[in-house]
Amino acid sequence: MKTEAPASIRRPFPPLYLSIVASLLAVLAAAALPSRASGLPDDIVADGNPPPGAFPLVVQHGEAPLWHDPADHAGVVRAIGDLRADIGRVTGRVPEIVTARESAAPRPVIIGTLGRSALIDGLVKSGRLDASDLDGKWESFVITVLDRPLDGLDQALVIAGSDKRGTIYGIYELSRQLGVSPWHWWADVPPGKRAEAYVLPGRHASGEPAVKYRGIFLNDEAPALTGWVHEKFGGFNHAFYANVFELILRLRGNYLWPAMWPPQAFNDNDPENPRLADEYGVVMGTSHHEPLMRAHAEWAAHGSGPWDYSKNAAALREFWRGGVERTKNFENIQTIGMRGDGDEPMSRESNVALLERIVADQRQIIAGVTGKNPRDVPQTWALYKEVQAYYEEGMRVPDDVTLLWCDDNWGNLRRVPTAAERGRAGGAGVYYHFDYVGGPRNYKWLNTVPIAKIREQMHLAWRHGANRIWIVNVGDLKPMEFPIEFFLSMAWNPERWTADNLDAFSRDWAARNFGPAHADEIAALIDGYTRLNGRRKPELLAPGTLNLVNYREGERVLAEWADLIARADKLVTALPAEYRDAFFQLVLYPVRASAVVQEIHVAAGLNHLYARQGRADANAPAARARALFAEDARLADDYHALRDGKWNHMMSQIRLGYTYWQQPDIAALPPLIEVRPRAGASLAVAIEGSQTAWPSGAGRAVLPPLDNFARGTRWIEVFNRGDTPFTFTVSADRPWIKLPPASGPVDKTTRLEIGVDWDAVPPGETRARLAITSDAGASLAVELPVKNHRGAAIRPGAFVESDGHIAIEAPHAARVIDAGGAGWRALPGFGRVAGGVTVSPVDASEREPGGPGSPRLEYDVHVFNAGEITVELQCAPSLDFLPGSPLRVAVSFDDEAPRIVPLATDATLRDWEQAVSDAVRRVTTRHTLARPGHHVLKLWMVTPGVVVERIVIDTGGLHPSYLGPPESPRAP
Amino acid sequence: MKTEAPASIRRPFPPLYLSIVASLLAVLAAAALPSRASGLPDDIVADGNPPPGAFPLVVQHGEAPLWHDPADHAGVVRAIGDLRADIGRVTGRVPEIVTARESAAPRPVIIGTLGRSALIDGLVKSGRLDASDLDGKWESFVITVLDRPLDGLDQALVIAGSDKRGTIYGIYELSRQLGVSPWHWWADVPPGKRAEAYVLPGRHASGEPAVKYRGIFLNDEAPALTGWVHEKFGGFNHAFYANVFELILRLRGNYLWPAMWPPQAFNDNDPENPRLADEYGVVMGTSHHEPLMRAHAEWAAHGSGPWDYSKNAAALREFWRGGVERTKNFENIQTIGMRGDGDEPMSRESNVALLERIVADQRQIIAGVTGKNPRDVPQTWALYKEVQAYYEEGMRVPDDVTLLWCDDNWGNLRRVPTAAERGRAGGAGVYYHFDYVGGPRNYKWLNTVPIAKIREQMHLAWRHGANRIWIVNVGDLKPMEFPIEFFLSMAWNPERWTADNLDAFSRDWAARNFGPAHADEIAALIDGYTRLNGRRKPELLAPGTLNLVNYREGERVLAEWADLIARADKLVTALPAEYRDAFFQLVLYPVRASAVVQEIHVAAGLNHLYARQGRADANAPAARARALFAEDARLADDYHALRDGKWNHMMSQIRLGYTYWQQPDIAALPPLIEVRPRAGASLAVAIEGSQTAWPSGAGRAVLPPLDNFARGTRWIEVFNRGDTPFTFTVSADRPWIKLPPASGPVDKTTRLEIGVDWDAVPPGETRARLAITSDAGASLAVELPVKNHRGAAIRPGAFVESDGHIAIEAPHAARVIDAGGAGWRALPGFGRVAGGVTVSPVDASEREPGGPGSPRLEYDVHVFNAGEITVELQCAPSLDFLPGSPLRVAVSFDDEAPRIVPLATDATLRDWEQAVSDAVRRVTTRHTLARPGHHVLKLWMVTPGVVVERIVIDTGGLHPSYLGPPESPRAP
Repeated sequence: MKTEAPASIRRPFPPLYLSIVASLLAVLAAAALPSRASGLPDDIVADGNPPPGAFPLVVQHGEAPLWHDPADHAGVVRAIGDLRADIGRVTGRVPEIVTARESAAPRPVIIGTLGRSALIDGLVKSGRLDASDLDGKWESFVITVLDRPLDGLDQALVIAGSDKRGTIYGIYELSRQLGVSPWHWWADVPPGKRAEAYVLPGRHASGEPAVKYRGIFLNDEAPALTGWVHEKFGGFNHAFYANVFELILRLRGNYLWPAMWPPQAFNDNDPENPRLADEYGVVMGTSHHEPLMRAHAEWAAHGSGPWDYSKNAAALREFWRGGVERTKNFENIQTIGMRGDGDEPMSRESNVALLERIVADQRQIIAGVTGKNPRDVPQTWALYKEVQAYYEEGMRVPDDVTLLWCDDNWGNLRRVPTAAERGRAGGAGVYYHFDYVGGPRNYKWLNTVPIAKIREQMHLAWRHGANRIWIVNVGDLKPMEFPIEFFLSMAWNPERWTADNLDAFSRDWAARNFGPAHADEIAALIDGYTRLNGRRKPELLAPGTLNLVNYREGERVLAEWADLIARADKLVTALPAEYRDAFFQLVLYPVRASAVVQEIHVAAGLNHLYARQGRADANAPAARARALFAEDARLADDYHALRDGKWNHMMSQIRLGYTYWQQPDIAALPPLIEVRPRAGASLAVAIEGSQTAWPSGAGRAVLPPLDNFARGTRWIEVFNRGDTPFTFTVSADRPWIKLPPASGPVDKTTRLEIGVDWDAVPPGETRARLAITSDAGASLAVELPVKNHRGAAIRPGAFVESDGHIAIEAPHAARVIDAGGAGWRALPGFGRVAGGVTVSPVDASEREPGGPGSPRLEYDVHVFNAGEITVELQCAPSLDFLPGSPLRVAVSFDDEAPRIVPLATDATLRDWEQAVSDAVRRVTTRHTLARPGHHVLKLWMVTPGVVVERIVIDTGGLHPSYLGPPESPRAP
Repeated sequence: MKTEAPASIRRPFPPLYLSIVASLLAVLAAAALPSRASGLPDDIVADGNPPPGAFPLVVQHGEAPLWHDPADHAGVVRAIGDLRADIGRVTGRVPEIVTARESAAPRPVIIGTLGRSALIDGLVKSGRLDASDLDGKWESFVITVLDRPLDGLDQALVIAGSDKRGTIYGIYELSRQLGVSPWHWWADVPPGKRAEAYVLPGRHASGEPAVKYRGIFLNDEAPALTGWVHEKFGGFNHAFYANVFELILRLRGNYLWPAMWPPQAFNDNDPENPRLADEYGVVMGTSHHEPLMRAHAEWAAHGSGPWDYSKNAAALREFWRGGVERTKNFENIQTIGMRGDGDEPMSRESNVALLERIVADQRQIIAGVTGKNPRDVPQTWALYKEVQAYYEEGMRVPDDVTLLWCDDNWGNLRRVPTAAERGRAGGAGVYYHFDYVGGPRNYKWLNTVPIAKIREQMHLAWRHGANRIWIVNVGDLKPMEFPIEFFLSMAWNPERWTADNLDAFSRDWAARNFGPAHADEIAALIDGYTRLNGRRKPELLAPGTLNLVNYREGERVLAEWADLIARADKLVTALPAEYRDAFFQLVLYPVRASAVVQEIHVAAGLNHLYARQGRADANAPAARARALFAEDARLADDYHALRDGKWNHMMSQIRLGYTYWQQPDIAALPPLIEVRPRAGASLAVAIEGSQTAWPSGAGRAVLPPLDNFARGTRWIEVFNRGDTPFTFTVSADRPWIKLPPASGPVDKTTRLEIGVDWDAVPPGETRARLAITSDAGASLAVELPVKNHRGAAIRPGAFVESDGHIAIEAPHAARVIDAGGAGWRALPGFGRVAGGVTVSPVDASEREPGGPGSPRLEYDVHVFNAGEITVELQCAPSLDFLPGSPLRVAVSFDDEAPRIVPLATDATLRDWEQAVSDAVRRVTTRHTLARPGHHVLKLWMVTPGVVVERIVIDTGGLHPSYLGPPESPRAP
């Protein structure tokens, strides 16, 4: 391992400072982008007061005609029709489409494909149009204003494409910049209105996309999408798919795996489906386990015998041959290889040799039917689940086949190409998931994958050369609008979005779809609900997920949701009326409905806790859960009622009632417990930090300690086990205990927040004693340890132990020490709480921790309880994505040798399930701190790819919780 | 081991035949009883038409005075007052009490104690009264009619006792025979009304009780008893205890461990308590862990320092001395030894030597305070829990101390005296439980211990010489009326009640308390609810206890309860009004309330099952559970409202909401799941034998098979997952499938019972296919395997394999083979389903199974699936009660060597908890049957004490259930 002299920089990254820096960097980065990726500015269209030379697309009393060569691709001609309609949507003026010189007004829009449009070719030939960044390019376009391009024309706006999709993307780029969202139909985003529209003078070139095939997979499509499609279109026919094709193209995607849950079969359902896809310009494929353009469901109709190549090769070959034959004139990517029947692993006996034979035979079929050399027919081999193991065990496919690496279905890449693999002619791609049916649990309802996570993982893929295909499973499509656009946008230009400018994507997206006025707030809402949903998929929530007695966890999370709801509700009234339907679909519904599901589980958890504690009012949270269940139904009904039922069925995915990985057959609340109070008045207390209650709780009632750094309060809940109200009194044996109103009536539960007058507390530890008595004669005691560290010498800014632990948000390091061209960097917006840190660049070489070439982060901490302590790192559930380089990080205190921590991402299925369910992988190290006082915790780089979100040091008082304690106080 | 020639008898014991034989035997046995135990007939009182020489106690216009010597025991004089009141209750005529010759009418009742009553002594001296069975006897009495006993008297009814309690028992015996129940106050049993009352001529002698001290322990007395005592008496004072003392004496008990849950302390609560106990004639003790007449709660008030003899001996000795001092003039049994503070084990350090020192010091205290040789002061050492281990490890107490052996708190004796121990001067006793606070779960609410179980276990104790003390923990006393009377009655004369005549106890008890007209039915109800509660304590029931898809278990058990309820309801109207309060307390409440608790758990189980199956009507069983919860409260309210609130609080023990061993702090339903139907109509089916449902259930829907021996039907439930009703149609592909109305509307669930026309079925196995379709276009298939064994040669009476198993009620053996003076005998009414079998006599020596001296039972069985099979014996959870002779039984088929099965009763805490929770211990053996067809299953004796209830042979098709399948069919 090469070692370099460390370049030590003191660079703390508090969120605010960092985000300012990030924004500046983003601006600089965007400005400096190479031409390969789109340098097209987002503002080539102006309304009024255009600069000199601007092209008048629509003016007061006229609009430029749209002129094209009728011999151009049908898909281009069709898209020109969309542009015409879009101009009408925006300006109210519908331009003429012309195909002859004589019909073209003096200032037309000329649209065409290089080599296909005589118009464009003529402009090139005449030297009027520079085709240097079109000729021989993939899917590129130029939008340029030409003065006097042809005789008799004053000016033209030229949209020229390098190929069919290049032209189409150019057309849709103009639509988008005019103010028509790709989601104008799919999410009812209203067009931005303009009376006039000018295109700025100059030449705007898209450059080529970074990833060749960029697509989505409609999957797991029942009940929501299927119910909706059947009601609105009568089936998965071309009337339905036309909307999908248009969307993909507007998003500059080019690739589709169609819906395939039996009985769906794209080519069988409607022969117009493949023809129209090709006409639109969408490259069709079939999913990872459906070879040679045959839908899985077709085997039942067209095949015979078992789905087993060792027994039934001839029939399978015939079946596949039909698939290729049927679509041989269209643009496709052939999926090759084979899985078991119905997307199951093949039997153990199906070995590598058999699979290699299958692939060879499939390529013979391709060659036979198409008459082409197979290496000229795009093919992909999906290394999905067990198939990746075949590859790792040595199975190979011809060099021209694209290896399609897959995530673990939970957004974590299982593999990226090695340096050696990057040389393959077929290159590599990624199959990713926003939706999944499988263990540990389906997630099919709402968007739960933050774009910070998508970016972090796809950036890995990109930096390791996976640039041939990016395809993402989008479930029913509809609730995934935001991440779909991000995924396809990033596929076009992966370098556009960095960890530091990513928040701009959300803002831009919000501005494009809802106007700039509330873009910040809408971006915060979308990123906010996705982050909270990403902490744990709604389907995995349970009454026990959030801790209801430690760290006020349940309350804190509900408060986060309540904040989002309040902000969303404000926008409902602030936004112009025409945005409301889109806002409901894209923001309000997911915010409110996700919050309802979270609160249902908290309410059920409180019901269980209260029942166990014997609270007379345990039925209240049960009633709340039932009310929220009704609210859940009401919200979906509202969704379904939008625009006279346009989206009916779209929210019919069951989200409540999961008991194992598969979705429930009916929506159900978590089990709720009904209680019956005792006769009479019955004083009892529950306290922060304890599941039990007194009387009858074991041992004494002792609250978690308070200290002068964390300050705050501790809560006691005085409640009744009986059906008769009583009056309680609370008193303390120390004058400096701050009590709330010291007595009151208790019908059900009264919470008391117990504070401390820190000016009056003696130094050291004091155990205060609170007495709670009822007028019915009962009496209970609660103890509160109070620690006053006044006078302790603590380094300013150090994290101070409180309540037996220190919790740190990983980005809050005191010092960032880079070395050897690598270093830890913050990932704002990443993960469960407050971002994470990861090593940059992601393809940096491994380091020996502690060596001069190993970057580190340093955190100043102050402990009162020395001795054996535990450090828990909460890491992203990333996987060991490169063979021979399993994810590792190292931890040390002060000058001790760094303790290397393998993330052990492939330990057991159970570990993996735990990690993806929790959305973090927890790893721990044990250390001995010889003395109380100041220490420096060091987080060392070993491999890139590790993301650390939070650090929790247990000095003996850590209690269970889902997220870990809130961040510890820092010394002033 | 001695072997004897086997005496083979063919003696099947079908219940009817057996019960007739049993009744005959009982009559013979009763007639032949030795005088030691009571030979007193139950009918010495007549109403009218008395035989010549009968004594006229009350006649048309007069009543005999009650004459006693005022110098007799105060307790006797007090009891005479009760007799006077009782005569008044029965006849409306209140006799005079006289103490002087001159006041005595010519036909008085003369009552007195030998050696204490000059009257009685005079009759003996004059030769008029034979005192041979009184003189020197313990607690014996004679009731005799004497002609001209004294000058001037025509006739006298003499009640003479050998000692104070002997006389009192004689007095109460007359009361009882007149028709005053011991429960006249405690259960509001009305007196039997008579206008006249005569006592039959003759001499009726009680004989001595078999067990010297016979008592009850009021324990675990909150909230029910404590709440009631505080409301009605203001505390556990003598006003309360007087009622307890009277009850004990009326039941011919003599011993009491008083309520002792802190702050209760019998001697401290009210100084009148011990004085009055002694006056009444009740021997006081303290519980197993409260030495020297000191209540546990007194240590806090009177002791100081730790409850630890190794550290605080002097203070403890002083504390104990005070206990002995305070009660030295009363009749007591001193508990000796020591446990840890608060009925906990002592620390591990407290060793045997320390305990022996404690006992020695305690005896010194006894000697010092009483001035007696300790061997003349009754003492007992309770071998409770860990204390028994000290004994087994060698700790010994002086020979005069009674060793009090204990059950496992769940009614299973841990130990009986060995032959060697039977020689000890202090003898042995038993501490038994009808109520318990501890693991696996408290049982404090209702009577759950069938008298068949009590008899079987206490018979073991009796036959092994435990006859000095019998004491039983009766909880709150009140709901345990029936087993308390049985326990004390059996303690008086353990040979009175045998396995075969035990049903007569229930009938007699019912007749005494409710009159003879409905005695059979009331006995059946009491035995019935106790048996069902004994299957599993109500506190241990859970939604998953009964299987809701296999063997119709849930339905069958609810039907048993429904039958009891229907019969009880009938009696409510059939019984005269004056019996209703007693009937409610003793029969109706326990029947209905137990049934409610059972049905709540079944309803909750159905709710869970239905929710998981996705049934739209899953909310219906939840609503049922909630309604039953309200019913549970209503029933308790009715109990509390009886007689203007006489029994308020008595049913306040929480019985619902248990989650671990300790009682919940509030009554709670099992968790219930609320579901929301899908939109539309959604056909689905659930089938017998499966938890899942279709569509979406795994694999095909296949019903358990039907066959021509078991016949019957299998059920399919057609249900809706949606909110829109549909119409279904069911059809079969075989004409001999008998379908219910083959179509109908499905709003929620429709059950279809599928039968077979056996005359039309082809021989062998056929798999019929049922199609269920909905008018909404959905369709589902269910398969039904049908087996027609027509023509198979099966031995008549043999149990025939059906549905992959053979289930046999153990008493239904084909042949009973005794040997060496021992043999298997039926225990009717024992256990969970249909009785059991055990070896008689219970002190028989161990046998080598298969040897000529080993008794066996033989069962004829016919199997279709040969090969590896499993035999499960469901045994009573009895324990290894004799050192060196762990419980064993042996099983064999045909001529194979018997497989010895140890019951392994001390295997693990978990096993024990499982056994006592389930009320059976399951043991299994594996066998290989070489061929299908006839086989003989042999159940061999190894040790006595094993009770086998059911035998379940799994031939490959056994499914989970709580009780096992119902008994298999027998070949005709």
